[in-house]
Parts: sequence; structure tokens; C-alpha cells
Amino acid sequence: MTDTIVSSATREVVIGFDRPFVMIGERINPTGRKLLAAEMKDGDFSRVEADAIAQVAAGAHMLDVNAGIPLADEPALLARAVKLVQTVTDVPLSIDSSIIEALEAGLAVYQGKPLVNSVTGEDEVMERVLPLVARHGAAVVAISNDETGISEDPDVRFAVAKRIVERAADHGIPAADVVVDPLVMPIGAMGTAGQQAFRLIRRLRDELHVNTTCGASNVSFGLPNRHAVTGTFLTMAIASGMTSAIMNPLHTEVKTAVMAADVLSGADRDCMAWIAANRDPDAPAGEGGRRERRRRRPAAS
Amino acid sequence: MTDTIVSSATREVVIGFDRPFVMIGERINPTGRKLLAAEMKDGDFSRVEADAIAQVAAGAHMLDVNAGIPLADEPALLARAVKLVQTVTDVPLSIDSSIIEALEAGLAVYQGKPLVNSVTGEDEVMERVLPLVARHGAAVVAISNDETGISEDPDVRFAVAKRIVERAADHGIPAADVVVDPLVMPIGAMGTAGQQAFRLIRRLRDELHVNTTCGASNVSFGLPNRHAVTGTFLTMAIASGMTSAIMNPLHTEVKTAVMAADVLSGADRDCMAWIAANRDPDAPAGEGGRRERRRRRPAAS
Repeated sequence: MTDTIVSSATREVVIGFDRPFVMIGERINPTGRKLLAAEMKDGDFSRVEADAIAQVAAGAHMLDVNAGIPLADEPALLARAVKLVQTVTDVPLSIDSSIIEALEAGLAVYQGKPLVNSVTGEDEVMERVLPLVARHGAAVVAISNDETGISEDPDVRFAVAKRIVERAADHGIPAADVVVDPLVMPIGAMGTAGQQAFRLIRRLRDELHVNTTCGASNVSFGLPNRHAVTGTFLTMAIASGMTSAIMNPLHTEVKTAVMAADVLSGADRDCMAWIAANRDPDAPAGEGGRRERRRRRPAAS
Repeated sequence: MTDTIVSSATREVVIGFDRPFVMIGERINPTGRKLLAAEMKDGDFSRVEADAIAQVAAGAHMLDVNAGIPLADEPALLARAVKLVQTVTDVPLSIDSSIIEALEAGLAVYQGKPLVNSVTGEDEVMERVLPLVARHGAAVVAISNDETGISEDPDVRFAVAKRIVERAADHGIPAADVVVDPLVMPIGAMGTAGQQAFRLIRRLRDELHVNTTCGASNVSFGLPNRHAVTGTFLTMAIASGMTSAIMNPLHTEVKTAVMAADVLSGADRDCMAWIAANRDPDAPAGEGGRRERRRRRPAAS
């Protein structure tokens, strides 16, 4: 059992084995969103606010917040976004930047225990990010690449993840506060991307006993009907042991897939969340009751 | 590598690890289909013919054929159904009955190497079914229950499956011709049904090196939006190592889930089947081409 506990000022979320999968909303990220990037740079955060509210309404348990805009003051923008999102929602945040000063600015204003996204296995990055994570008592996403890049061999990526977990321990960060990202490649460009990810996720769980996350949308890049591919990737990753993902809960196929995986992993007790989400809103009150009774009958043989 | 090779008079299908998942159409089965049962009993096999054609058109690689109708001459009905289906489609069949005389009648008329569905771990059943399977050079579905019933402990079910594989070998049937059914319970009645199945499927693959199948629809019995649950079950079972299932390819969510799982397991080479199935039929010819080129671009970082 490995529980990664993150929090806002008023709410705790636990990422852990045999618990409901944790959906981390991906939308607050100007990368590839020109309009959002332009608005944030101009000081208009109305879309950040709307995206935060919509993702939580759609079921996000946490939100990733990124303010990576070229030629902008990323530390100031990230701090402002973090503060704003914490005023309009109560879910814990993942503070997302590759710039240490931006992580520092985000952490300085954050209320609670966030996830810091991310540290890699590069020595210089570890030596800058891990002391910051330790000082703030945060949890951290560990990306399994190092100075040599991203290996195609899942066993090499496992070794990188193991090194980050060990280095984190040197800084006083327990393994339970390191959430490993196996790095998922687009399956359309690399046919072994799924098998690599599933194998690595399983080893990370069985041998390193850590929680895992990933940016899920990347796997379906360039394919038609891509949300179905992303949703299926998530269910297969959950079957392999993955415990959270940065994803878009507004895509129905993706969210439904995760909810069904919670049913099948046994994390959705008595299928309560599934039944509530799939109850026909137009049905009379008696209908939902009938459905709930029906599911308790034994199966026809 | 374990390949279970089944055939019709003109076509071979291979159930195996790291190959496309084998969809076995479930529809030709009067259990719970009153109209079909009444028609078959009266000698009207038009619906059997239509169901065979529709399931193969929807992508079924094999068809299960069952004629279990109370107070009917099941051997005669099953033989007639098998002959008819083999005249209107060329996919290999799973000959499905719990009555030995019906299995015998179906096997007597079958062209090719079928799957016999099924044998259990009960001594008396093994001693009647396995010699029949061996004599016809067929493959067989082994259901992991015995005289004591269906254990809730996946390790007990594994032991039953192992005993059937060993007994089959005594009759000259190689392990490659035994496809084990882990027996999947409805998740709405038993919250651990998914975990049990996934654990057992993994052991059957890793330790017993056998192919696996199951009646997939049962898992979602009684739940709302059940096809989404069935589809997700299949993807998680595929991630755990399952290689075939008796299922309904006419349910879009179920079939799409299996096709996406083939993409992510790497079995759908270059995503060709996925792209073909998801190409917009209304798009001009150039559109499909653009899509195919687009998926080869590297991902945005």
C-alpha cells in the first residue's frame, strides 16, 4: 500500500493502489492553445477560471496548472493562476513547469500540499527541484528520462525512476511522495509504446511500490477517433497498476473509460459512482430504484 | 508463444499471444432469446443465418453456435445450425453445448478444426468430452470449475485449469489446443470479479502458457450503460493477457474497445485496422490520406 496524499486548504486527495483512479485535469496549459496563451499573457485569466470550474464539474479530482508561455513572465503568471484556481475550486493542484523559478513562485502562494510537476533523472534538475519539494513538504512527479534522453527500453526507464526515488530519499522525501511518470509515446509513431508503458507501470508498482501518472492524451496523437484510444489506453494502464493521470475529464469517452475501470478494479464500491453517473436523468424516480435492485440479482447461468 | 489454430473448410484463425484479439460472436444462442428458441424448435433457422452473416460483417473472427433449447432435440438442432452457418460464412466455429451427444452431432458434420465449448474440471465430464475432442483433432474450451463448484479464489481456479490441461495431455491433446475460460462473474453482484479474472488470466498466461477466452457480456449483467462496462472489461483483460472472448461484435462500444486494445497492445500493426475502421466514410478520398500521413508525425512535446 502506497498512499500519496495531496491537499488544498480544505480537501485531501489520496493517490493509491486499489483506490479510485485520480483524474488530474489537463486543460489549464497554454501549450498548443494560442488563444489561452495570448489571454494569459495579457492578464486575462477568465478562461483559466472557466476551465478550472468545468473540469472539476466533470469529475477532475485534481487540476494541473501550467503557464508556460514563450517570452512571458512565467513565475508571475503561474503564481497568479495557482492563486486564482484555488479561489474558485477546492481540489489539490499539480504545479506544472520546467522552470524552477516558476515552481518556486507557484509553491510560495499555494495553500495545502501540492504535486510538483516535475523532476527528471538529470542530476542538475534533481539537485534544483528536490530541495524545493522537500522544503515545501510537497509531492513530486518523477519523469523517467535522464541526460541520455528517453530510452525505448522500459527497464532503463525503470532504473532512472529508481534513481530519482533514491535521490528523493536523500533529500528526506519519502517514496510515497514520488509519483512516477513512465513517459508515454504516441502509439501511431511507435507501435510498442503501449507495451512499454504497461510493462514499466507494472514494475513500478510491484518492485518500486510507487504511484504512477502520465500525460494520457499524447498516446493517441494523430489517430482518428483518438479519445477512444486514450480511454482504452487508460483502462489498460489501470489494469497494469497505474493510479492517476493528467487527462481531459471533459472528453466523455475518456472519463467513462476511467469510471468503468474503477468498477472493474473494484475501487467503485457496489458500482455506486457508475450507477449514479449512468442513471437516466429523464427516468422517473422508480426507474433508478429498479435498476439498482436488478443489478443485485445473480446472473443467469 | 502459444498458438491455438482453428479452421473452417477454407479459413484458419489463430488465437495467440501478441496477435490481434479473437472475437467469437455470441449471438447464435437461444438462451434468453425466446423468439430464436421458438423458431429453431419449429425448424425456422432464418434468424441463425442472419445472425451469422451480421456478426461476421461486424468483424467476428469466429462464431459460437449453441442450440440449447429445453425439450428439443438439441443434437439434431445443433448439427443443423453448424451445417447452415458453415454454408453462409467461412469463419471457424465454436460448437457450444453441455450435452455430449450434441457436441458429437455438431462435430460429425463440421468441416475443419473447431473449438469445442466446453469441458469442465469435473472428472466425469473430462472423461466424456476429452476423448471426443481428441478423436476429432479439435481444440477445447476448459472452464475452471469442478465438482465443488466455482471457487472465488483465483488460485483454486488456476489449479482446476492446470488439472484440465494435464488431463487433456493424457488424451493426446496439446496445451495449445486448450483455451481456458476463467469464468467471469457479474461485477454488480461481486465487486472482486474483475480483479479475480485479471489475476487468473495473468497466471494462466505466464505460468500455464495457455490461451484464454470468456463469455464477456456476463460481467456487466444488471448495470446501466452495460456495453461500456463490457468493453472496458475486455481491454483490461487484454492488458492482463486474455487472447479471445465470446462477445457481441454488433455492440459498437464493445467492438471499438477491442480494436483500440489491439492498437495499444501493438497487435494492430501501424494502426492499419483502426485507421480503416475510423476513416470518415463521407470524407473525400484525400482526407483519409491526410490522416494517414498526419499520424506519422512525431508528437508535439
